Amino acid sequence: MDFQITQENFSKALGNVARVASGRSTLPILSNVLITTKDNRVCIAATNLDIAIRQFVGAKVEKDGSLTIPARLAQEFVSNLPEGNVSIKQEDHKLHIDSGSYTSVINGTPADEFPVMPAIKDGNSWKLNAQEFKKALQQVVFAASTDETRPVLTGALFASVGGNLYVVATDSYRLAEKIVTKNTTKDSLLIPATAVSELLRIIDDTAEEVTVLYDDQQVLFTIGDTELVARLIEGQYPDYKKLIPKTFDVQATVEKAELVNIVKVSSLFARESAGSITLSVDQKAGEIRVRSVASQVGENTASASADTQGSGEITLNSRYLLDCLSAIEGEKVQIGFNGKLQPLVVCSPKHKDYIHIVMPLKS
Amino acid sequence: MDFQITQENFSKALGNVARVASGRSTLPILSNVLITTKDNRVCIAATNLDIAIRQFVGAKVEKDGSLTIPARLAQEFVSNLPEGNVSIKQEDHKLHIDSGSYTSVINGTPADEFPVMPAIKDGNSWKLNAQEFKKALQQVVFAASTDETRPVLTGALFASVGGNLYVVATDSYRLAEKIVTKNTTKDSLLIPATAVSELLRIIDDTAEEVTVLYDDQQVLFTIGDTELVARLIEGQYPDYKKLIPKTFDVQATVEKAELVNIVKVSSLFARESAGSITLSVDQKAGEIRVRSVASQVGENTASASADTQGSGEITLNSRYLLDCLSAIEGEKVQIGFNGKLQPLVVCSPKHKDYIHIVMPLKS
Repeated sequence: MDFQITQENFSKALGNVARVASGRSTLPILSNVLITTKDNRVCIAATNLDIAIRQFVGAKVEKDGSLTIPARLAQEFVSNLPEGNVSIKQEDHKLHIDSGSYTSVINGTPADEFPVMPAIKDGNSWKLNAQEFKKALQQVVFAASTDETRPVLTGALFASVGGNLYVVATDSYRLAEKIVTKNTTKDSLLIPATAVSELLRIIDDTAEEVTVLYDDQQVLFTIGDTELVARLIEGQYPDYKKLIPKTFDVQATVEKAELVNIVKVSSLFARESAGSITLSVDQKAGEIRVRSVASQVGENTASASADTQGSGEITLNSRYLLDCLSAIEGEKVQIGFNGKLQPLVVCSPKHKDYIHIVMPLKS
Repeated sequence: MDFQITQENFSKALGNVARVASGRSTLPILSNVLITTKDNRVCIAATNLDIAIRQFVGAKVEKDGSLTIPARLAQEFVSNLPEGNVSIKQEDHKLHIDSGSYTSVINGTPADEFPVMPAIKDGNSWKLNAQEFKKALQQVVFAASTDETRPVLTGALFASVGGNLYVVATDSYRLAEKIVTKNTTKDSLLIPATAVSELLRIIDDTAEEVTVLYDDQQVLFTIGDTELVARLIEGQYPDYKKLIPKTFDVQATVEKAELVNIVKVSSLFARESAGSITLSVDQKAGEIRVRSVASQVGENTASASADTQGSGEITLNSRYLLDCLSAIEGEKVQIGFNGKLQPLVVCSPKHKDYIHIVMPLKS
């Protein structure tokens, strides 16, 4: 292998790919990136066996070849090189990297030991607007669970239902659902939230289209010259639609920034009660009140004026409410609930394609 | 106690003071701030028994009193309140804090349980330019040791010698020395580096003068309305002056940014050797070279052109060299050493009031 590449392109590709390579794996080669050349392009790849990322970069290839080298070292090293051309020469299992006054040798491991993800054959595919898709994922993915004991909840569900493609995530304490676009395929994929997080990193602000190719076991996202492959999660996703109330006894619309502030201040007093705050809607006073009580440290009540319908109160985890408020677009936010034991529904009065549910705490 | 204060002033004072209050102490009251009123001013204070900080703030005091309340809660709470007046009312051991639509009660502990640092009587004092003093401390304090087994090295030495006031810190692997100003008192104080770090936070960019009042046991820094008291470290500081070579067999002057870059890149290959890099000055080639070898991952050599006198090499810890380079002012940096076993001296060719020594590693 012998090629020349610009420092900028090489560094960017390593930055996109290297994070997936984990130093914690029991298989040492997984902490490496695979570098291969083909048709005047260099392919840089890494995998943790659940997720694989590949990026293709233009280069002046003198001689084809392939080698794996330590991912973290390669990425940090190349990102610190000066701008300009970097010359790469393979000599057995060593990679000579030269750039200006820098001369280095990195010891590698043969490429044939690197695990290969199986290719997707005869899959279906969707084409999605990259920026809309990215935004939808950002609004949803944080609600997924990190608890491996219920694997289905560690995924984000991509479901084509009733002519719309939905993205959904829940950890059973809160749930986020967003309509991404129209779609009539009636397919559904359960994609690991960790893969979605990597995907969000890869879709940069200039990306225009994301192609999603999938079969029963895997999904391949293609964004420009970058590909991400993830293993799908098996299992039945909970029938969450029945959890979402259609009508509300109590509703209120309030300035989002004000609600964020009063919840944030109340949450400071809610530390010993695991974030528990009580939210009241008072139709007579035309306000939302948030109250928290900590027997040790004190108590706090704060209010914000609101357009209200009905009165009532509900006890919630303040962190879930803050997470949800920071994901909702627009200056105003609408909340609705039916008594203390039913979920709280939060949405924007303008953008009805996104809703968020927070389950109540017993108070 | 009953007073009104602006949210901005209250929040700033709590921010300056609350960090010293530690939640980890075995004495629970040390995680509180003490709030007292006197002569239409509020005093906010915290201590960890080694360091105490007090800040005075103007307020409209209706009734004098004092109480301690949890520092972290108070600081986070007040910083999240809206701008404007905050009304504080004491009721036994509770503090009622009201501001606009926020109503809170914080449970406190009586002020008479709060430890008091002894006052300094009959001390000497220095008056120093705040910004020059701050810069000197920033350039020196990071070289102090964090290893409590040699307490004297965990301090910064303030020594008035030969008509100059020096600030010095060393962890025995590297040493930084800065001349702060002219001073003829011939006194010397050994101040805990942790106190210096707090002091750096307190001296803001608008501060003009720092008064240093000291006796045999304590030092009191006064910056505007803020006071910091620290216990002095007892013991004999090493006679470091004899470590500093006066003449050099090998010397080089180089662009600081270039040297930082080549050391940084080499340090990536020096992880398995605890940061060990070899720095060579080559008079014939007119360059400095930095080389690192890691048997596992590979090796790197990088060079920068330099004005050189003599040739030689020395093996160093790259982290100490990078720390030192980021503390030195100016675009160029001058290094000098006498063989592999003598310390490296680093300074700016222009600003000779600051020098830094890095001890060699055995190679």
